[in-house]
Amino acid sequence: MTDSTAPAPQPSGPAAGTLPSDLRVAVLGARGRMGSEAVQAVRRAEGLQLVAELDHEDSLEALVTAGAQVVVDFTVPSVTEGNVRFAVEHGIHCVVGTTGWDEEGLARTEALLAQHPGVGVLVAPNFSIGAVLAMRFSAQAARFFESVEIVELHHPDKVDAPSGTAARTAALVGEARRAAGVGPSPDATKQDPDGARGAVVDGVHVHSVRLRGLVAHQETLLGNLGEQLTIRHDSFDRISFMTGVVLGVREVVSHPGLTHGLEDYLDLGL
Amino acid sequence: MTDSTAPAPQPSGPAAGTLPSDLRVAVLGARGRMGSEAVQAVRRAEGLQLVAELDHEDSLEALVTAGAQVVVDFTVPSVTEGNVRFAVEHGIHCVVGTTGWDEEGLARTEALLAQHPGVGVLVAPNFSIGAVLAMRFSAQAARFFESVEIVELHHPDKVDAPSGTAARTAALVGEARRAAGVGPSPDATKQDPDGARGAVVDGVHVHSVRLRGLVAHQETLLGNLGEQLTIRHDSFDRISFMTGVVLGVREVVSHPGLTHGLEDYLDLGL
Amino acid sequence: MTDSTAPAPQPSGPAAGTLPSDLRVAVLGARGRMGSEAVQAVRRAEGLQLVAELDHEDSLEALVTAGAQVVVDFTVPSVTEGNVRFAVEHGIHCVVGTTGWDEEGLARTEALLAQHPGVGVLVAPNFSIGAVLAMRFSAQAARFFESVEIVELHHPDKVDAPSGTAARTAALVGEARRAAGVGPSPDATKQDPDGARGAVVDGVHVHSVRLRGLVAHQETLLGNLGEQLTIRHDSFDRISFMTGVVLGVREVVSHPGLTHGLEDYLDLGL
Amino acid sequence: MTDSTAPAPQPSGPAAGTLPSDLRVAVLGARGRMGSEAVQAVRRAEGLQLVAELDHEDSLEALVTAGAQVVVDFTVPSVTEGNVRFAVEHGIHCVVGTTGWDEEGLARTEALLAQHPGVGVLVAPNFSIGAVLAMRFSAQAARFFESVEIVELHHPDKVDAPSGTAARTAALVGEARRAAGVGPSPDATKQDPDGARGAVVDGVHVHSVRLRGLVAHQETLLGNLGEQLTIRHDSFDRISFMTGVVLGVREVVSHPGLTHGLEDYLDLGL
Repeated sequence: MTDSTAPAPQPSGPAAGTLPSDLRVAVLGARGRMGSEAVQAVRRAEGLQLVAELDHEDSLEALVTAGAQVVVDFTVPSVTEGNVRFAVEHGIHCVVGTTGWDEEGLARTEALLAQHPGVGVLVAPNFSIGAVLAMRFSAQAARFFESVEIVELHHPDKVDAPSGTAARTAALVGEARRAAGVGPSPDATKQDPDGARGAVVDGVHVHSVRLRGLVAHQETLLGNLGEQLTIRHDSFDRISFMTGVVLGVREVVSHPGLTHGLEDYLDLGL
Repeated sequence: MTDSTAPAPQPSGPAAGTLPSDLRVAVLGARGRMGSEAVQAVRRAEGLQLVAELDHEDSLEALVTAGAQVVVDFTVPSVTEGNVRFAVEHGIHCVVGTTGWDEEGLARTEALLAQHPGVGVLVAPNFSIGAVLAMRFSAQAARFFESVEIVELHHPDKVDAPSGTAARTAALVGEARRAAGVGPSPDATKQDPDGARGAVVDGVHVHSVRLRGLVAHQETLLGNLGEQLTIRHDSFDRISFMTGVVLGVREVVSHPGLTHGLEDYLDLGL
Repeated sequence: MTDSTAPAPQPSGPAAGTLPSDLRVAVLGARGRMGSEAVQAVRRAEGLQLVAELDHEDSLEALVTAGAQVVVDFTVPSVTEGNVRFAVEHGIHCVVGTTGWDEEGLARTEALLAQHPGVGVLVAPNFSIGAVLAMRFSAQAARFFESVEIVELHHPDKVDAPSGTAARTAALVGEARRAAGVGPSPDATKQDPDGARGAVVDGVHVHSVRLRGLVAHQETLLGNLGEQLTIRHDSFDRISFMTGVVLGVREVVSHPGLTHGLEDYLDLGL
Repeated sequence: MTDSTAPAPQPSGPAAGTLPSDLRVAVLGARGRMGSEAVQAVRRAEGLQLVAELDHEDSLEALVTAGAQVVVDFTVPSVTEGNVRFAVEHGIHCVVGTTGWDEEGLARTEALLAQHPGVGVLVAPNFSIGAVLAMRFSAQAARFFESVEIVELHHPDKVDAPSGTAARTAALVGEARRAAGVGPSPDATKQDPDGARGAVVDGVHVHSVRLRGLVAHQETLLGNLGEQLTIRHDSFDRISFMTGVVLGVREVVSHPGLTHGLEDYLDLGL
């Protein structure tokens, strides 16, 4: 374990120079690709105090010693549920970005949380606030438009098409349209010998562009007679996930129980 | 008055070829720019039956004779409130696109509606569903991003800059950010001798492009470290307003009382 | 035949109110979709004088009587070559937008022009200056980028995919890359069960979006490490072709012989 | 000086594993921000062999010892001209990205090159091929459109508005329009109390957006009745300059004399 602040955090109280009300945050998987970004994001964030950075060789006891109130987990599928169990049992809230959570793991964690009523756990497959909002807005708008199609654009080293986010967006859009009784988008295409019209996912046409220089980008195009609504998200760098991680840390303390997906913390009102 | 269906509508029942459940709709200002579009939109819309097209020389009694259940008003500021009063007093719902309604007129109409509890009136300054959604989404997303700016693009015959919709969007964005305690968008600009940074409306930078070939277009750009969310609306033709008019006609019958703005009919859920 | 100016054009000289140097222009197919736009475009254009509007029942002799110097042909494939022959034999330049010209017809016209050395004929499949420039720029840029893909977007009543312009652009891009020895765009796609990667035309991925509200739009996306160049053309209305028609009329008088394609009149320099 | 290849380059011939025909390239300023990117770009590039990486404490004699055929200079204004003089006098071609060259320095270098007829020097203010092409295409297209405006978008730490590239593009566009006798873009704006219409540079409206998450982006918007042409360049990372540097290295050996600006190496043909 590496103490991440100077002077070192003391269990007895916050370090000099931080406010008593600062939220005490630890990062697990602190030397990984995402974890190291999380370490820096917590350091930069107002009102958060980084009290521990742990990696796989460190003991979880350090979380307790450091007085962590929230732990951010960017580890690996094989250990993430155990980490969360330890934290919850010690009254520490969790923000989890590690992949690999299935229904069973989520159910076990929910059962555990029932015994620790004040503790919150957020398990989020995508911490990009922009991507989460783009999906939400696409689904909300889908039933008001005659036509919807999705174009996703990524770097050319990506092996699958369409992207998972595009497929998920198409599923949400398709579901929203069916629920509202909206028929399929009109399409008079009769000749398309080479497949230019792309994939059809849940009734929605999806197009995948692969271009050197790009990172991860997506557009939902919605059309009515005489108008178009476009919702586009550009992800230029994985640092973009950190805005969502910090939001998660701030919100998890007031959201006891299990939350699956960042969208439930984005109170979009009506 | 011009009867708009053949055979002419009879107060005693729907015309041959329409279903008993069709909603009987009349258009006021039927020969105007917007009214004539509304006439055609009602004709095209499934489940709606056009029963009267009136213009300024016609008597409002024709609404009653024709058995109208909903009246669409695209007339002029000087007569629109009187038209609505007549309709409400005869139990006819109203969808109003005429401009010039002020707080007093709305209050008087609300008072009138209190005496006619089953009747609904929708007064909407903008019937473009895409524009209404773009504004809504911009305001919802605004507090999750460090930066927000607005670019609006119109034909070069427009005399004012920025557009009313852009100013309204900036106001909603600014209000959402203040309510959430989000500070101003970062901006290190020190040298801008010619005003390239555009207008600042409610704390939000707004840029107005005027270009031959365009109609009415707007982008809200939202940025965080490593990501961008763009919400763009393109209005290519005023026919785009008709989707909103038809939606209003369908919804007004189940929304008694006064509704101001189409957004309240767009149940965007959570 | 309908004389289109008042007072009627006199073979003896320009009408009052026009300059002696105004170019005297006639339109064939003047009541058709494109021809009627051409009539209005010529009327609006500075330096051009509309001297005759002819449709299929009119005699071509009227061109001579009216003193036309340039004839614009938007007729039908079966008569266009005959119209051009008549015009050339009477020393009248031609701007031809009628489709259906094949290699034989072009060759015959070229041979005819060899006997009338001062006369120019422009046969153009596409009068949209923006579309022509977009194709040209795409082809010019293609060899400097690792990746190129094309996205075309049209109204949903279009029956073929991809569009002819997109296929033509892909062919030009592919040809430019092969000539420069540039390999195919990188693509690591291994799983694409539904065809999201679109069509491959001349080695270039082409994607076709069909969306209510759109007219005709196309983007060429070019990518290198860390950068993207996008060339987009939006066609909102067929009036856009008229800028090219007017340019053609002005230029044909100084381009004797046969010219195929508007691009040769766009002197893009170096 | 740091030898950059293993085994170290020998003046007597190319290192093992490289082809005799590989171009032998040295980088000056090799530890700087741009120089270190250039070192890696040369290493990655097929047909180029990195033979020396020098920084300010190293002697220029090492260029000769290493048998460099081309030197890439990313140093500082105070030494760049001296570096070029040394290289030219030793028959080494130069690709210069260092800023600060004025007319006098360029003239002196041109005079020097007159005495060394086989040697080429490229001094380029911008090595982004995409940006150079975007400027070129904007200028070429400018005279064919009624309206032109420029929108540039950058990160919010930028201190000046508009960007130098936008101002340069506006100057080229303005010049092209004046040369062709094209008047100003139409603009009916009468009320713009807050300056939403942006800056006017050489008769062209320029708008500057500053948004967290962005790097450097620019759009030229060109409009005619019914159509729009958009030329957009996105620079996501300074690595994008390296494609231009490598192109410069490959071309400088066959372009003797002084070349100012990468565009002269982009043979865009007609």
